[in-house]
Amino acid sequence: MAMIKKPVTGMKDILPAEMAVRTYVTEVIRKTYAEFGFSSIETPVVEHIENLLSKQGGENEKLIFKILKRGEKLRLDAAESEDDLADSGLRYDLTLPLSRYYANHMSELPSPFKALQIGPVFRADRPQRGRFRQFTQCDIDILGDPSYISEIELILATTTALSRLDFKNFTIRINDRKILKNMAKKAGFAETDNEKVFIILDKMDKIGWDGVRKELLENFPEETVDAYLAQFAENEDPAALMEGSDLPTIIAAVDAVRTADFKVKFDPTLVRGMGYYTGPIFEIAMDEFGGSVGGGGRYDEMIGKFTGQPTPAVGFSIGFERIIMLLLERGFKVPDAKEKVAFLIEKKIPGEKLTEVFKAAEEERKAGRAVLISVMKKNKKFQKDQLQAEGYTEIREIFAR
Amino acid sequence: MAMIKKPVTGMKDILPAEMAVRTYVTEVIRKTYAEFGFSSIETPVVEHIENLLSKQGGENEKLIFKILKRGEKLRLDAAESEDDLADSGLRYDLTLPLSRYYANHMSELPSPFKALQIGPVFRADRPQRGRFRQFTQCDIDILGDPSYISEIELILATTTALSRLDFKNFTIRINDRKILKNMAKKAGFAETDNEKVFIILDKMDKIGWDGVRKELLENFPEETVDAYLAQFAENEDPAALMEGSDLPTIIAAVDAVRTADFKVKFDPTLVRGMGYYTGPIFEIAMDEFGGSVGGGGRYDEMIGKFTGQPTPAVGFSIGFERIIMLLLERGFKVPDAKEKVAFLIEKKIPGEKLTEVFKAAEEERKAGRAVLISVMKKNKKFQKDQLQAEGYTEIREIFAR
Repeated sequence: MAMIKKPVTGMKDILPAEMAVRTYVTEVIRKTYAEFGFSSIETPVVEHIENLLSKQGGENEKLIFKILKRGEKLRLDAAESEDDLADSGLRYDLTLPLSRYYANHMSELPSPFKALQIGPVFRADRPQRGRFRQFTQCDIDILGDPSYISEIELILATTTALSRLDFKNFTIRINDRKILKNMAKKAGFAETDNEKVFIILDKMDKIGWDGVRKELLENFPEETVDAYLAQFAENEDPAALMEGSDLPTIIAAVDAVRTADFKVKFDPTLVRGMGYYTGPIFEIAMDEFGGSVGGGGRYDEMIGKFTGQPTPAVGFSIGFERIIMLLLERGFKVPDAKEKVAFLIEKKIPGEKLTEVFKAAEEERKAGRAVLISVMKKNKKFQKDQLQAEGYTEIREIFAR
Repeated sequence: MAMIKKPVTGMKDILPAEMAVRTYVTEVIRKTYAEFGFSSIETPVVEHIENLLSKQGGENEKLIFKILKRGEKLRLDAAESEDDLADSGLRYDLTLPLSRYYANHMSELPSPFKALQIGPVFRADRPQRGRFRQFTQCDIDILGDPSYISEIELILATTTALSRLDFKNFTIRINDRKILKNMAKKAGFAETDNEKVFIILDKMDKIGWDGVRKELLENFPEETVDAYLAQFAENEDPAALMEGSDLPTIIAAVDAVRTADFKVKFDPTLVRGMGYYTGPIFEIAMDEFGGSVGGGGRYDEMIGKFTGQPTPAVGFSIGFERIIMLLLERGFKVPDAKEKVAFLIEKKIPGEKLTEVFKAAEEERKAGRAVLISVMKKNKKFQKDQLQAEGYTEIREIFAR
């Protein structure tokens, strides 16, 4: 069989320059969240097929990479569908494994439990520019606390991490599933129509007010639609819309405490796709990037499906891949990177001199520099150009005599 | 379908205490190798089935988790064996993906290329204590340099990383495939018998001299066997055995330069299983752990199978999971961990006071402490005990009035 050089379809090799940024971002995020009392955890990349197909993942369940059963369990002759062939698959997000993890280890974990997960997830999406079938997610979650203090913590921690990565002037859009529902109810929609209404409202960014109104009118009476949309009008009092929700307290606290450069803004049109949210929801909007670069919300009903007992939960996910893309696009350089020195040594240098070279390199490292030792190539000019392009600011040539 | 709480067979959830150690070790390793000029890279977890089954992986190829084809490509009715069902699988090591990566990106990479990879690999081994089906490997490799300078660099960098993790008094055992072959030839073995001879010699740790001799005698004439074993006798001159090899230079340089507390020792009985090694081979032996906690060697013939042109290569793999196990066993505490303060606040605290609490937390963070804010639970004593167990050295209680 011939060897294949390209990665598998839709997956990506990460080159050193990008990897340096990814490593740096990961460390900043980890350190920031640790300061806010979040503990890093890890779950396996492989998950039970039963859990993956338990209807928690919506559309993502159609995109699962399934793993073949092994040994005697694989009965090809008796298999009627692909479900008979697979007993596990690659996780499509980090929330489902977190729920399983919490159910499995509840007695060993503090309450509330503040978790940080950074790791690869997999979706067999149609490959397209900037979207990959393996990508990194970065989630923080607080499990076991029903109070809005958790929402405030998530927003403060995440915005602190983003500001340490030099993101400024972004907006946290915030809404509450309860407000969404109240507004629909007040307009006269039946509760059973809520999902349909919210799916249309969620298209605001793409099709605008007129598009939303038109699509609503295709499904609902004009009177209801207009009563609904009137509530979003700019002269409407946001305080009245937020009545009975924790949002005013959350917004006031974040506004009073924040040190980073961002706005937090009530946005009654924010829906967020995932059906499992039950309370406040939020999203990060950045001007330099059209869409959202992260988001989350409260999902008080998911963990209970694993544990059998209701467990309040709220999470915030940073769009790791988008953050990396934005940093690379603006030519981000990892700060505090060490000065880099290269020692080019002539081949067949005598042993004694070689020892001196290694000792000199050790001294440089002690002085805080990174040192690469390399044999001089025939095309020395090309080699030196390459080293300079990689950030080596000093190149020392050492000859046999 | 019922949700399953346990991880899939043979895989592992990582709890916060272990994860803190893993994160720390990863950072120490990354920083150390960066100082030696290694660049971090990443390859996808999923690899082409053709590459995985290309006979580079020896026994590991029997342990591959295979991934089901998707959509129209999956033709269950026409499938005759499991090979018709899978077009990819989970990587079983990091060396094979590195070879593919290098072949794919050669023109964008410096020469020589010094790579660091830390990531999960997968083997469907029979589950047993301390051995998991997903585990982390940590490899450094130098591609494109035929000189022994690379071997010296790998050993110095790896021992520096280990010593920064507080490992002392360990031994780097070193040998050379060429010496192994010379000794077999000198004793009178046919070259075609080499593999068989080395497999038996490799059992030295387990069955001792007498066991090795006995097993050799079952396969080869006494005269040859005794001529062979006589060369390993203690009064034999190691310099004579190492003649024509680079080992004396490598050992002398490492010995002269090393700052860490370890020995480097020529060991003519060292074999290392993998068939692909072509030159010097090495292994880390630690008294506190019976077996090897890492190893590597030169494999000049593997990359060429991807690239079509011979590319010298040498690598060193730290036994990441063993290192973590040893650190956990000796009760390792992550150094420089921040002081941790917990704020327990009474539920329904008024908004103004809440803001004060968050501001106070921010001040603590600025002063270098990690702060967890949590709602006071009914069973406050249990909550406080739990926080203390997690390393919170100060617990501040804040009441509504």
